[in-house]
Amino acid sequence: MPNHSEIKNLLENREIGKKIVVCGWVKTFRSNRFININDGSCIDDIQCVIDLDSFNKETLSKITTGSSIRVKGQIVESQGRGQNIEIHVDNLEILGLSHPDNYPIQPKKHSFEFLRENAHLRARTKTISSVLRIRSKISYAIHKFFNDNNFYYIHTPIVTVSDAEGAGEMFKVTTLDLKKIPQTENNDIDFSKDFFGKETNLTVSGQLEAEAMALGMGKVYTFGPTFRAENSNTSRHLAEFWMIEPEMAFYELTDNIDLAESFIKYVIEYVKIECENEINFLSERLTKEEQSMPQNQRSELSLKERINFVIKNDFVRINYTDAFNILKNCKPNKKGKFKFPVKEWGIDFQSEHERFLVEKHFKSPVVVFDYPAKIKAFYMRLNEDKKTVRAMDILFPGIGEIVGGSQREERLDILENRIKSMGIDKKELWWYLDLRKFGSVKHSGFGLGLERLILFITGMGNIRDVIPFPRTPKNADF
Amino acid sequence: MPNHSEIKNLLENREIGKKIVVCGWVKTFRSNRFININDGSCIDDIQCVIDLDSFNKETLSKITTGSSIRVKGQIVESQGRGQNIEIHVDNLEILGLSHPDNYPIQPKKHSFEFLRENAHLRARTKTISSVLRIRSKISYAIHKFFNDNNFYYIHTPIVTVSDAEGAGEMFKVTTLDLKKIPQTENNDIDFSKDFFGKETNLTVSGQLEAEAMALGMGKVYTFGPTFRAENSNTSRHLAEFWMIEPEMAFYELTDNIDLAESFIKYVIEYVKIECENEINFLSERLTKEEQSMPQNQRSELSLKERINFVIKNDFVRINYTDAFNILKNCKPNKKGKFKFPVKEWGIDFQSEHERFLVEKHFKSPVVVFDYPAKIKAFYMRLNEDKKTVRAMDILFPGIGEIVGGSQREERLDILENRIKSMGIDKKELWWYLDLRKFGSVKHSGFGLGLERLILFITGMGNIRDVIPFPRTPKNADF
Repeated sequence: MPNHSEIKNLLENREIGKKIVVCGWVKTFRSNRFININDGSCIDDIQCVIDLDSFNKETLSKITTGSSIRVKGQIVESQGRGQNIEIHVDNLEILGLSHPDNYPIQPKKHSFEFLRENAHLRARTKTISSVLRIRSKISYAIHKFFNDNNFYYIHTPIVTVSDAEGAGEMFKVTTLDLKKIPQTENNDIDFSKDFFGKETNLTVSGQLEAEAMALGMGKVYTFGPTFRAENSNTSRHLAEFWMIEPEMAFYELTDNIDLAESFIKYVIEYVKIECENEINFLSERLTKEEQSMPQNQRSELSLKERINFVIKNDFVRINYTDAFNILKNCKPNKKGKFKFPVKEWGIDFQSEHERFLVEKHFKSPVVVFDYPAKIKAFYMRLNEDKKTVRAMDILFPGIGEIVGGSQREERLDILENRIKSMGIDKKELWWYLDLRKFGSVKHSGFGLGLERLILFITGMGNIRDVIPFPRTPKNADF
Repeated sequence: MPNHSEIKNLLENREIGKKIVVCGWVKTFRSNRFININDGSCIDDIQCVIDLDSFNKETLSKITTGSSIRVKGQIVESQGRGQNIEIHVDNLEILGLSHPDNYPIQPKKHSFEFLRENAHLRARTKTISSVLRIRSKISYAIHKFFNDNNFYYIHTPIVTVSDAEGAGEMFKVTTLDLKKIPQTENNDIDFSKDFFGKETNLTVSGQLEAEAMALGMGKVYTFGPTFRAENSNTSRHLAEFWMIEPEMAFYELTDNIDLAESFIKYVIEYVKIECENEINFLSERLTKEEQSMPQNQRSELSLKERINFVIKNDFVRINYTDAFNILKNCKPNKKGKFKFPVKEWGIDFQSEHERFLVEKHFKSPVVVFDYPAKIKAFYMRLNEDKKTVRAMDILFPGIGEIVGGSQREERLDILENRIKSMGIDKKELWWYLDLRKFGSVKHSGFGLGLERLILFITGMGNIRDVIPFPRTPKNADF
């Protein structure tokens, strides 16, 4: 293993007097004496103090922002404020140059747009690297929560023939020569010549396959990429994003909501502890950013306060009909302030309605359940009223829908009716229906969009800045 | 949360006398008295003992293999052999029927081919569910190892414009209407009309992007799906499989090998402990299966012995040239037993050569390093001899290559020469070259195929049986 130390460990262990080797990229070089370097292991730099006389001018001139160096020295108690230790440098080696005129990531504020164009280098900034460290720790917390709670992690297929879920537009996957698409006698595309012998797409959800696994393994979850070929150029949409989809046999809707709430709280609390420094930094960043906004657009709570609020308070739970009545009778609706007026029971709530419920009315995360059957997917369990289904959405302040889930329809005849009435081809779902023929049981699950959760925890404004290399319409660079 | 208990917890906690509720699928129903059920939480069933007189005939007739039931009762010490506890049933509810004439998964031996055709139900079998539980625990161990060792988990893109890696044939991703492919004036395909505005593919590796992240965040790893559109209908190839790719700044090749070896040992040992029952079961299964084979085709070691062997022994490390000489001078080569005779230095080793080294010559996992530059990728670091590169492959008994890695070329001029000499378009790699322009450092990484590691730990013979829904040529069912 390498003989250098990582800055994270040095700062945590504070072994004053120890001789060490450390490598990193130069952040700043001040007064020909203080070199701050970062190696990516944590948010903090370490300060390396050099004795000017020991180094020639040529070497010193190469110590520029972005250059990489290797330092031998001794850990000493720091003289400066804000650092607990620093390194007294005995020996310094330049590893790689970084010409100041060409290196894009200079020690100044860059716009997020600019950093996106330099996504291959933006992990060297404090903000983006903090977000990506949090992304990593969130992911780990997700695996840890499910592992500790007897869930099995399953990998559902990315390439799929199924398009029954209807969750959105899909990307085609093919090895056909686009210049010479083979045709059948009826002038249809001859997919029998394609790699999989059928028309295939990128998955929009692993749910249906996860159900099959849950009905053998009990409690399972997916954690993988999902895709939407929708032309949505917003700060909330990606064409490729990561989703977590637990699915539990023998769980009813209330169990499902209980699980989702405790899961989200666990993950947020885990990250709050593990990434304290990053969250402090991002909370300050956001507060500073909001200082330039008009008072009424600033957040009432700081990022840290919002995180604590979610961990400490029960989510509000309300059924669709009650939520509908609140919205119908609320001031903004009566005054015609909603772009989409709330009139008829059965409408799908729009972002403005969800935000009103969460940010104005309840000032809390809200779980809305028992939605009208007509606006929800075929697999959701029909209630006794025949009008609503056992669906649930969890709405978060500033983010909107962060979780969508349901109890699944386990009754074969009702499921078949729903499939028929929605005009879906039953043949394609033969195996999904099989699950209701052989030892069918009540079961439930939900989907959580990883990037939306990261947006909440980091306070970032654009979803493109919380994934290393975002995929959006007209953009698949890097 | 639901008020039923999970069988895993019941068997672990052994709370004799406790009143509980348990749900599951019927495995067997013997003597009108003993119902074995499994809920997927672990490999073991729990035996539910009913008092025949308390239930009417109609109810009893519905308790068939694959049906689902809910049982209330009391935990009692088991009378039978092989179980530590059983449930004395007070109340039994049939949840879902399973008609014996139609349910495919009857309590008898099914061929793996048959189970693949019923992949939606095969997680209800002991063998497949054991494999999938092991898959889950392997995945968790991977995340735990990296998290505990200060690595950050990164999600590299699945849809990519890059095809420079040359790791294999690729799937196209498109939203173009295949019946009306738009054309440019030159009769080329007009990809500017496509979703991403460019020709895009499914990734074959996240390595290049992982390098960009490592050169900001220090130590990172990917864990995600990768794709090969190769028409390989073998028991070792999938079109869609999961890969783990760590990438470490400031690591040289030896550090890289050290890491890979300790990583693999950690994961195998973790799973050996966490999935002891599953591995015992699969080890016995394999031994039984091999009993029907001729003596000389049986494994010298049982599955459990193989696992222990890998954990306890150092991997053999040998450079390509030494390995080449062993192969050139070995008996099978001299006697013309190899399909591909070993004659000239510079050849790529074939499966038969790797197996000879691992299974016959060293009888150990083997790390081969410093391969001829000509047979390896452009990004591998050129040695002083100008003929070999700092590549390494780890070869496993029965599996072949399980890890492929290298120290990456960090010197801009040499990298540019390699790209040129391999006929790759430099423009496409502008950002990858940038990483060598700004604070370039030595770095290394490797890729490990998840499914191959599962094959090793489970002793399964076909890679299609270690992933829930395999994707292979002409097959994307479910």
